Amino acid sequence: MTHTAGTPRHHGFGPMRRKEDARFIRGRGKYVDDIKLPGMLHGAILHSPHAHARIRSIDVGAAEAHPKVKAVITGETLEAMNLAWMPTLSNDVQAVLATDKVRFQGQEVAFVIAEDHYSARDALELIDVDYDPLPVVSDARTAMDEDAPVIRDDLEGRKDNHIFDWEAGDRARTEEVFAVADVVVSQDMLYPRVHPAPLETCGIVADMDKVTGKLTVWATTQAPHAHRTLYALVAGLPEHKIRVISPDIGGGFGNKVGIYPGYVCSIVGSILTGRPVKWVEDRSENLMTTSFARDYHMSGSIAATRDGKVLGVRVKTLADHGAFNGSAQPTKFPAGFFHVFTGSYDMQAAHCEVTGVYTNKAPGGVAYACSFRITEAVYLVERLMDLLAAELDVDPAELRMKNLLQPEQFPYTCATGWEYDSGDYATTLRLALEMAGYEALRKEQAEKRARGELMGIGISFFTEAVGAGPRKHMDILGFGMADGAELRVHPTGKAVLRISVQTQGQGHETTFAQIVAEELGIPADDVEVVHGDTDQTPFGLGTYGSRSTPVSGAATAVVTRKVRERARLVAGAMLEADPGDLEWSEGRWFVRGDPNSGVTIQEIAMAAHGSVELPEGVEGHLDATTVYNPPNLTYPYGAYICVVDVDAGTGKVSVRRIIAVDDCGVRINPMIVEGQVHGGLADGIGMALMQVMAFDEDGNHLGASFMDYLLPTSMECPSWELGATVTPSPHHPLGAKGVGESATVGSPPAVVNAVVDALKPYGVRHADIPLTPANVWRTLQGRPFRTDLAIT
Amino acid sequence: MTHTAGTPRHHGFGPMRRKEDARFIRGRGKYVDDIKLPGMLHGAILHSPHAHARIRSIDVGAAEAHPKVKAVITGETLEAMNLAWMPTLSNDVQAVLATDKVRFQGQEVAFVIAEDHYSARDALELIDVDYDPLPVVSDARTAMDEDAPVIRDDLEGRKDNHIFDWEAGDRARTEEVFAVADVVVSQDMLYPRVHPAPLETCGIVADMDKVTGKLTVWATTQAPHAHRTLYALVAGLPEHKIRVISPDIGGGFGNKVGIYPGYVCSIVGSILTGRPVKWVEDRSENLMTTSFARDYHMSGSIAATRDGKVLGVRVKTLADHGAFNGSAQPTKFPAGFFHVFTGSYDMQAAHCEVTGVYTNKAPGGVAYACSFRITEAVYLVERLMDLLAAELDVDPAELRMKNLLQPEQFPYTCATGWEYDSGDYATTLRLALEMAGYEALRKEQAEKRARGELMGIGISFFTEAVGAGPRKHMDILGFGMADGAELRVHPTGKAVLRISVQTQGQGHETTFAQIVAEELGIPADDVEVVHGDTDQTPFGLGTYGSRSTPVSGAATAVVTRKVRERARLVAGAMLEADPGDLEWSEGRWFVRGDPNSGVTIQEIAMAAHGSVELPEGVEGHLDATTVYNPPNLTYPYGAYICVVDVDAGTGKVSVRRIIAVDDCGVRINPMIVEGQVHGGLADGIGMALMQVMAFDEDGNHLGASFMDYLLPTSMECPSWELGATVTPSPHHPLGAKGVGESATVGSPPAVVNAVVDALKPYGVRHADIPLTPANVWRTLQGRPFRTDLAIT
Repeated sequence: MTHTAGTPRHHGFGPMRRKEDARFIRGRGKYVDDIKLPGMLHGAILHSPHAHARIRSIDVGAAEAHPKVKAVITGETLEAMNLAWMPTLSNDVQAVLATDKVRFQGQEVAFVIAEDHYSARDALELIDVDYDPLPVVSDARTAMDEDAPVIRDDLEGRKDNHIFDWEAGDRARTEEVFAVADVVVSQDMLYPRVHPAPLETCGIVADMDKVTGKLTVWATTQAPHAHRTLYALVAGLPEHKIRVISPDIGGGFGNKVGIYPGYVCSIVGSILTGRPVKWVEDRSENLMTTSFARDYHMSGSIAATRDGKVLGVRVKTLADHGAFNGSAQPTKFPAGFFHVFTGSYDMQAAHCEVTGVYTNKAPGGVAYACSFRITEAVYLVERLMDLLAAELDVDPAELRMKNLLQPEQFPYTCATGWEYDSGDYATTLRLALEMAGYEALRKEQAEKRARGELMGIGISFFTEAVGAGPRKHMDILGFGMADGAELRVHPTGKAVLRISVQTQGQGHETTFAQIVAEELGIPADDVEVVHGDTDQTPFGLGTYGSRSTPVSGAATAVVTRKVRERARLVAGAMLEADPGDLEWSEGRWFVRGDPNSGVTIQEIAMAAHGSVELPEGVEGHLDATTVYNPPNLTYPYGAYICVVDVDAGTGKVSVRRIIAVDDCGVRINPMIVEGQVHGGLADGIGMALMQVMAFDEDGNHLGASFMDYLLPTSMECPSWELGATVTPSPHHPLGAKGVGESATVGSPPAVVNAVVDALKPYGVRHADIPLTPANVWRTLQGRPFRTDLAIT
Repeated sequence: MTHTAGTPRHHGFGPMRRKEDARFIRGRGKYVDDIKLPGMLHGAILHSPHAHARIRSIDVGAAEAHPKVKAVITGETLEAMNLAWMPTLSNDVQAVLATDKVRFQGQEVAFVIAEDHYSARDALELIDVDYDPLPVVSDARTAMDEDAPVIRDDLEGRKDNHIFDWEAGDRARTEEVFAVADVVVSQDMLYPRVHPAPLETCGIVADMDKVTGKLTVWATTQAPHAHRTLYALVAGLPEHKIRVISPDIGGGFGNKVGIYPGYVCSIVGSILTGRPVKWVEDRSENLMTTSFARDYHMSGSIAATRDGKVLGVRVKTLADHGAFNGSAQPTKFPAGFFHVFTGSYDMQAAHCEVTGVYTNKAPGGVAYACSFRITEAVYLVERLMDLLAAELDVDPAELRMKNLLQPEQFPYTCATGWEYDSGDYATTLRLALEMAGYEALRKEQAEKRARGELMGIGISFFTEAVGAGPRKHMDILGFGMADGAELRVHPTGKAVLRISVQTQGQGHETTFAQIVAEELGIPADDVEVVHGDTDQTPFGLGTYGSRSTPVSGAATAVVTRKVRERARLVAGAMLEADPGDLEWSEGRWFVRGDPNSGVTIQEIAMAAHGSVELPEGVEGHLDATTVYNPPNLTYPYGAYICVVDVDAGTGKVSVRRIIAVDDCGVRINPMIVEGQVHGGLADGIGMALMQVMAFDEDGNHLGASFMDYLLPTSMECPSWELGATVTPSPHHPLGAKGVGESATVGSPPAVVNAVVDALKPYGVRHADIPLTPANVWRTLQGRPFRTDLAIT
C-alpha cells in the first residue's frame, strides 16, 4: 500500500534483487576473517577481570617464552612508541593497553602475537598481572557522589567523574510554557545500555610492508577513510602509505565506526614483527568491550492544554559514557541528535539538558542504528505522548493526529533550531491506522479487557534526522560530512562507480548501480560499484547514521549527471548538432524534434574514446568526480503500530502485529528499503522486550554472551505489515532520504506503548525496558526493578 | 654538459633516485610469476616443430589421461567457443591454436592445464599431432614468387603472400628532384629481424570468478586498458567485469603490447576449470613466438647537389611480417612511423613505398623500442648520408651540418606531411662534436690508418616522432590516443595520482610523482602513483612509443593544475580573499602583495575536507580528472658519435666510445632520462654488432636461445658519454618530449657508420647488420653474407 505525496522525480527505480547476493548465498563473501596472507600471525588480547584496579606489575616473561609466541605487547611497549593512549572521536583519550589502571571489566591489558590463534590464546594465561582492586562505580546515578572514586585520574586535574553538560532549546521560554500549561505529565525513564551485536564481530588484518613503507589494513570498519586519516594522524604514518580495505562486512549498526585497541595492537604488531597480524574478536569480547549504545537516564515532562494541544517538552538526562568517552559521536555536539526530542509535533518551547559521566563500564556511547541519540529522543517523546493521552484520557492516535506537524509547516524549524525538510505526517499516520484496522483493534481490546485478557495497542510516530551533515550540524575530526563519488564509463558503455561509503549488508552494490542506471539509461547490471577500499575510492566519512543514500547517493546522482552532460557534448559532435539543441530522454541524447536521431550512452562512450573528433576544449572519455556537501539533513519519518498480548501469569509479551508505514522520500530499491525496515523492527522488539547490558555493583558485566544478552529471533517476530508514503526530500537530487535506522528508532516506543497499554487495567503507567517476562510480572506486582543493574 | 635552448618552464625537476628501487633492490618486486593463488593451475603450450604443415589430426587422449592434467585445449575447443582466431591490431587475424595448418615454427597447437608446471610440460609430450609438411617461404624476397606456397589460405580468396602496399610522400616531385640532381647514391640495406628479449618473458594469471562473473587477469602487458577492451570485444565478456593488472614488469620494449595465444588459452582455461590458470613463457618460447621487430629490406637512394645540398630521398621496402600481420602497429598506417625517413634534414622531396608480405616466420612486426619503424627510417637516411659524404668526399659531420633543419624552420612540415614541433639541431650536433673532440679523433684516425690500423668514427643525427597520437596520425581499435589522469589529495596533503600508462621499468612512480610535486609544491615522496590496474586507473592506451611523458605526463600536469585551481578557491575562503586576487608561488597560494598570507597545499587540503566554509558551488576535497588528447606528436632528437676499432684479422669490432647528446625537451628526472639512454645505447650496439633472428630455408629458427641470439653485456659497452640540450616542446604543458626509444633509434647507424668508416681502406661502402666478427671478416674478403638467413 503506497500513498505518494508530491511527484517523485524518478520513476525508474524499483525492486531489484541484490547483485551481491550471488556471492553471499553461495558462501563466497570475503570477510576479514577470510583474509589469509603468507606468514600471517595471530593476535589475542588479555582482558582485565576487574572493573577498577591499579596495575602493580605485568610479567610477560613466560608468555614470551612460549615457542609459538612472536611478541607480547603491553602498555609499556606502546608508551615507548607514544601509542599507549589514542584519541576518541569525542575529545577524550582511551587507553589502548592499560598502563596505570584498568577502568572497566574487559579492558585490554596485553596483546600476544603467535604463529596461530590457539597458541596466542594459550599464552594469554601465562601472563601474570598483579592487580590492586579499587572501589567501583557502576551506576551513573552515584558517579557524581562526593565519595565516588575518580575513574579518570589520568586526566590532568580531574577530581570527579563528570564529563560534560550540554543543553539545547530555550530554558526560560520552556519554563514559561510549563507555568501556564493546564496539564504537565512527568516520568523518569531509563533507556538501558544495549549493544548492536553484529553477526560478524570486529577484526583486522594489518600488513606493514617495511620495504615500501605501506600499511595495508583489512578491517571491519564502517568508515575506512576516517580510519586511514586517524591512523595517519595518530601513528604518524603518511596518509598515502596507508590503505584501509573494508571487505564484506557482516553488519555494523555503528559498532564498526570507531577504532578499537585490537586494531592499534595489530598494526603495531605488524610493524614490530614485519609480518601480517590478524586479530578477530570472539563474541564475548565484542559484547564486553566494543561500542555500546544508549544508557540514558531521562527525566522528562510534557506540558499541554486541557484539550490536548502540546505546549512543550523538557528533559534532564544523565548519560553514562563508561570509562572513556570513546563514542563515535560528533565532537561538535556531545549529545548528538538528541536535538530532535520534540519529535514530530508542533510545540511552543522545549528544553533539554544532558550530563555525561564516567563509570567503570566499557567505553562508547552512541552506536546501534540510533542516529546519534534519536532513538532515545523518540522514545522519550513517544512515551510522554502516551502518558499525556492517559492523563487526558484521550486516544493516543487522536492526540498525535492533533499535534502532528502539518505539510504547510515545512521546512519546519524545531525548538532546538534544526530544520525538518519535508513531511506529510497525518497522511502517513492515517495510512498506518487504516492498515491496522485501528478502530476494530480498540474494540477487540475492550472485549478482551472485559474478559480479563491483557491486550495492548501501541503507536509511535517518529521523525529521524539522517544523512550526517551538513557541517553546521556535525563534523568528525574537524571534517565536514562531504562525500566524494567518481564515475567512469568504459568504451563499451559499462560503468564503474566509486563511492566513499561502503556496505555492511545494505546492498550498496545494487542501489548505487540503480542510481547510475537510472540517470544514464543503461542496465544496472552494467554498473560496477567499488567501495570499501581507500586506495580505490574518493574520500568520505563512511556509512553510519543512515547517511549513504542522503550523502553518497546524492553524490552519485550529481556525478552521473556530470557524465551525462559530458556525453551531451560528445553526442553533439556525433550528431553534428549544437549540444544545446539536444534533449535527454529514455537513455538517449537526441536532436530536439528528431527522436530518431538519438545516441545511447554506449554509443557515446565508444565515440568519446576516439572515434569522433571532439570540439576544442571538450575532454574525451566519459568520467567525472564530485564531492557532495549536503545542505541539510534529510528527515524520514514513520507511523508504527504494535499489537501485543501479555500473559499476566508469566509476564510474557507476545508481539502479535507490527504495522510500519515509512516515508523515506523516493525509494530507489523498495525491496532493499523493506529489508532494512524488517531488520529495524526486529531490533525494536529486541530493545523493548529483551536486550540489555546490565552490570552488578562490582562492575561485572552481566551480558557477555548470547546466553545472557538476548536477541530476538524469527520466533519473537510477527509477519511484518509494511506501508509507504513518498514525500521527496526537496534538497536531495533524487528526493531520497535515509532509511537504515528508521525502524530501530521508531519501533521500540510502539512496542512499549503497546505493553503499557496492555497493563493499563493494573494501573501501570510506565515500565522501564526491557520488558522481560520477569520485569513485566514484577511490574504487575508493583515492584519493578532496575534493568540496568541486574536481572533476577 | 647541458646547453639550454629557450627557457624551460619548470626548473624544479631534477635527478632523484627512483622510488621503486627500494622494492626492486631488495627483491620485493612482484612480477606475474610471483602471483600465487589458491588452487592455481599451470598451463603449457605445445608448439609446432614445422614452419609450414597441414594438421591431419591431434590426439590429446594420453595427455588428458595424465593424473595431474585438468584440461587440454586445442583449436577445436576454441572453435566451439568461437575463439580459435583472434584479431590482431593490424586488420588481420591470428590463430590462437592452430586448426587447419601450422604456419611458422613454434606456432601454438595445444594448451595443457595441470596441477603443476612440470606435469603440464610432461603432458605436452603425450600429445600426438599428425603433420603433413608443406613447402616453406622463409625469405621475404621470394614470398611473392608465383610458385611460392600460399601461407594464408585461411583468408577468403587469397592467392599470394602479399599483405599491403603503402606509400608516403610525393612520387612525381621526387622523380623530378632526382632527375636534376648532380649526385644520386643508392644502396640496398637489410635491417634484419630482431627481438626485444625483455628480461622477463611474457606471462599471465587468469582468474575467472564464476560467482561474480568477474575475470581478473595479471598479465605482462604494456597496455592493460587496451587488453581489457580487447578481451571484452573478442570474448564477449562485459568490460566492467574484467580487471587487467599489470604488476611489476621486467621490461617490455614493445614485446608486451599485444595479446598472445597463451593469454587467451589461460583465460579459456580458467573459464573451463573454474580455477586460476598461470602461464609463463620460457626464454625459447619468448624468442620464437612473440613479437619481433624490423625485417625490412630497403632499397634507398639519396639525391644531392655537387656541393652537398640534399635534394631528396626515396626508398622501396619489402617488409616481412611473418605468418600473421599481428603487429601492434596502428591500423591507420600499416608502415607506421616510417613517415620520418627524411630524417633531420631539409630537402625538397621524398617518396617511400613499403610492400608487406607473409612468410613462414613468427608473426609480429614492429616491437622493440622502435617507435613503429623510425629505427629503420633513421638507419636508412643516416646510412645514405654517410654514403653521400663518401661519394662527395666530404666529412660526414660537415655534410650533416649543412643539411640540418634550422631553428627558424620549426614547426617544420616534412616531405610526408608530419609536423616536427621544435628543434635546434645544429647546436646539438656541435655539442656532440665538441664532446667527442671530433677533429682530434679524425687526426688520430689518419695516423692509425697510416699504420694499417682500422679505426672508425660514425655519426648519426636522428629525429624521433613519439607520444603516439594525435588521432590524425594513429589510432588503435578506432580509439584515439587520449590518456586519462586522476589526482586526489588526501586531508593531510598527501596525493595519489592514477595514470593510464604503467611502467615496465621506466620509473613512472618517481617521474610522475615529480610532476605532481612540482606543480603542487609538495615533496615527491608524498605522491603515490597508481598504475597498471584497470580497476584503479583511468582509460588510456598504454606505455609504448615513448608516449608516457608526452601523453600521460601532459595529462598529469593538466590534472594537477586543475587541482591547484580548486585549491585556489579553497584558499580564497581560508584567506577571506577573492580567489582572483591570489597568486601561486613556491607551493603556496597567497594574497597578491602579501607574501606572508600564503597557505600550502597541505593546509588547503585539510581545510577543503571540512574545516572551512566553502562558497556556494565550490566542491570540497582536492581532486580532479582529465583526459589529455595530444595535439601533435613530440619530436625529440639527438646527435650520436661512435668510435670503433676493428681487428682486421678476426673482424672483431670494439666500441671504444659513444658520445650521445639527446634533446628530449624539458627533463623531469635527468637521472632517469640518462638511464633510458644507457639502455638504448646498449641496444644500438647489440643491433649493429650481434642481434639477429635468422631462419634457414626450412623456416627453422636459428636464434631461439641466448646461446644463438646474442645480446650485448657490459663487456661490449664503453663508458657512455652523455650530453643534453633542452629545446622544449611548444605544445606539451611541461615542454617535455619522450625519450625512451631515442638511443635505440639513434645509435645503430652511428655504430654502423663507424664500422664502415673503419673499413674504408678496404673499399667497403656498406655492410648489412649485424656486423659480427664473421660478417666483418667476410666483408673484408669481399664476400658478405645474408645475415637474415644463416650465420656461419
